[in-house]
Amino acid sequence: MKEYNITVLKGDGIGPEIVDEAIKVLNRAGEKFGFKFNYNYQLLGGCAIDATGVPYPQETADACKASQAVLLGAVGGPKWDDQPGSNRPEKGLLAIREDLGLFANLRPAKIFAPLKSASPIKEEIIGDGLDILIVRELTGGIYFGDRGTYEENGVVGAYDTERYTYPEIKRIVKAGFEYAMKREKRLTCVDKANVLDSSRLWRKVMEETAVDYPEVEVSYMYVDNCAMQLVRNPNQFDTIVTSNIFGDILSDEASMISGSIGMLASASLAEGTFGLYEPIHGSAPDIAGQGKANPLATILSGAMMLRYTFGEAEAADAIEKAVDTALTLVRTPDIFEDGFAHVTTSQMGDKVAELL
Amino acid sequence: MKEYNITVLKGDGIGPEIVDEAIKVLNRAGEKFGFKFNYNYQLLGGCAIDATGVPYPQETADACKASQAVLLGAVGGPKWDDQPGSNRPEKGLLAIREDLGLFANLRPAKIFAPLKSASPIKEEIIGDGLDILIVRELTGGIYFGDRGTYEENGVVGAYDTERYTYPEIKRIVKAGFEYAMKREKRLTCVDKANVLDSSRLWRKVMEETAVDYPEVEVSYMYVDNCAMQLVRNPNQFDTIVTSNIFGDILSDEASMISGSIGMLASASLAEGTFGLYEPIHGSAPDIAGQGKANPLATILSGAMMLRYTFGEAEAADAIEKAVDTALTLVRTPDIFEDGFAHVTTSQMGDKVAELL
Ligand SMILES: CC(C)[C@H](C(=O)O)[C@@H](O)C(=O)O
Ligand SMILES: CC(C)[C@H](C(=O)O)[C@@H](O)C(=O)O
Repeated sequence: MKEYNITVLKGDGIGPEIVDEAIKVLNRAGEKFGFKFNYNYQLLGGCAIDATGVPYPQETADACKASQAVLLGAVGGPKWDDQPGSNRPEKGLLAIREDLGLFANLRPAKIFAPLKSASPIKEEIIGDGLDILIVRELTGGIYFGDRGTYEENGVVGAYDTERYTYPEIKRIVKAGFEYAMKREKRLTCVDKANVLDSSRLWRKVMEETAVDYPEVEVSYMYVDNCAMQLVRNPNQFDTIVTSNIFGDILSDEASMISGSIGMLASASLAEGTFGLYEPIHGSAPDIAGQGKANPLATILSGAMMLRYTFGEAEAADAIEKAVDTALTLVRTPDIFEDGFAHVTTSQMGDKVAELL
Repeated sequence: MKEYNITVLKGDGIGPEIVDEAIKVLNRAGEKFGFKFNYNYQLLGGCAIDATGVPYPQETADACKASQAVLLGAVGGPKWDDQPGSNRPEKGLLAIREDLGLFANLRPAKIFAPLKSASPIKEEIIGDGLDILIVRELTGGIYFGDRGTYEENGVVGAYDTERYTYPEIKRIVKAGFEYAMKREKRLTCVDKANVLDSSRLWRKVMEETAVDYPEVEVSYMYVDNCAMQLVRNPNQFDTIVTSNIFGDILSDEASMISGSIGMLASASLAEGTFGLYEPIHGSAPDIAGQGKANPLATILSGAMMLRYTFGEAEAADAIEKAVDTALTLVRTPDIFEDGFAHVTTSQMGDKVAELL
């Protein structure tokens, strides 16, 4: 039997309970489709700070590097708000992305048909649905550039640097074109090229790379305009490729527009097939341990892992279908509507595993 | 009779036609409330590039500095897309902001009652209306920091610097508190303090300044979360204070959420009473010269000028009221709905002037 090695980082808040359900479903998929997982459980974020003093311990790094993929719950919470900037749970996220070379963050914003009415946007705008893929650069730009505070002639200041090299842009832009090719073949590069030099370099790389993908319809949009257009007419977008900070802002906006934020998965990919998979929502410390968390985004992150890292497309499809069906039967509190059965986190996991 | 000196920059695209209507209304307000304007017409943006080779000519700068306020239409258009980054119409905007010290950009996002149904957001979320004031820093941060392209060991790269000094942050944060005091006394500082050093300095200045405004309820929000919250529940916000780039993105998103983008005015203020007033919408070159443009945002920018620079609150109120009434009678194409009379740009100006 095929064996897959994954490192599991449950993280903080609702992380442990949602990851448990994803593992339940992954195991069931393995039984059905003939493979098996070896799980190596490690710490990341606040729980790692508590246990080891740092958010991304060496042991975690070693385990990740020795495995084929990483499944992550969520990190952070008010408990660690007083940590200095250099030692916060979020720092663990940034560090693991950099250390594992996870440069391409795929954030699909889509609407699950049974949840269509959950979008804050009017139905006449959303129409039949929504399906945007945001390809966010994840290991460069202002989140990783030089920063500091300084004093000059008695005046205190602080700075952060948005910096991109040609090869960094090239690989993410190529990823953008590759994913666009698998979708509707429309790629929008979002930047602020009317002001920023780094954005102008992005456009240059886009133009050069476009030559290799003649089938892809390329467009350019300023980030301020994109923030508007996502609200005005989100269906104009197919695939968006953008920098770390713009992708952070726009993908969160897009996920809220979908109305399905508890449902959205993400993949952070390195060169090759290695990837880290996690729900896009946060650690929700206020509801942790109460069985109220919705595990579907984490379960769907497991499906993404099967698809992108292990090439098990059939198993991934089956999980996604089981989730769709589960949604027509049972609901966790965050997506509850009259006419459905109310379930806990673990009952939702059971239901998806059973439907598989 | 009181005389007010203003420099008028019609700009490009629909700029000239919308500014003409604002002047029509300002003149009528002057007749009614007992003051008179002296207008000095100058060039900014694409028209300035065509006439003088640069987007912000010295003559324009001198005229602005010799006057008490500036009224601006809009700048830019595809005609100047091939200009190098250093000589584009947008550069004129950045240059005039810096040269005139316009550090505080006030961008109200509000819904005009007769246009309530125009918001893309569902009515149960918008409720009775929306009224957010975004106070955007306008002469610092990454739009003005060091930038460049470089080659290092054969690798090409580009960078831009987000940089803020303590005094730059202090004056905009103070402006944020002052405007919050005139509104619902709730101020949200939007930043990315979990990652950026510049954001951490903003928070420090916020905390220090908050001590002087004990009545103001202060909150902090990450920019990615704010982009979501504006869609999920925009009414949670009263006044937002933020950096140049975050303000650019969020104010455009907020204005689209209001559904009234052709209606929104803005003020860019220096220390003291000097200010530049302009609609937040762009130069819409596709409809220029056809009498289709909606002049109301520019007319309302004129009202803001009366309020903030000239202290003519009564005249400002009267213009705003006339606009509200006009909206219940006539409509330009962008906001047309059945049951209203269709009017051109100049007929809309006539109507507001008549109702004054
Ligand atoms: C926690 C933070 C550093 C992180 C980011 O901005 O990258 C988060 O917002 C995300 O989007 O994954
Ligand atoms: C044209 C551009 C430089 C400008 C900006 O981003 O400041 C515009 O988007 C604005 O918001 O006024």
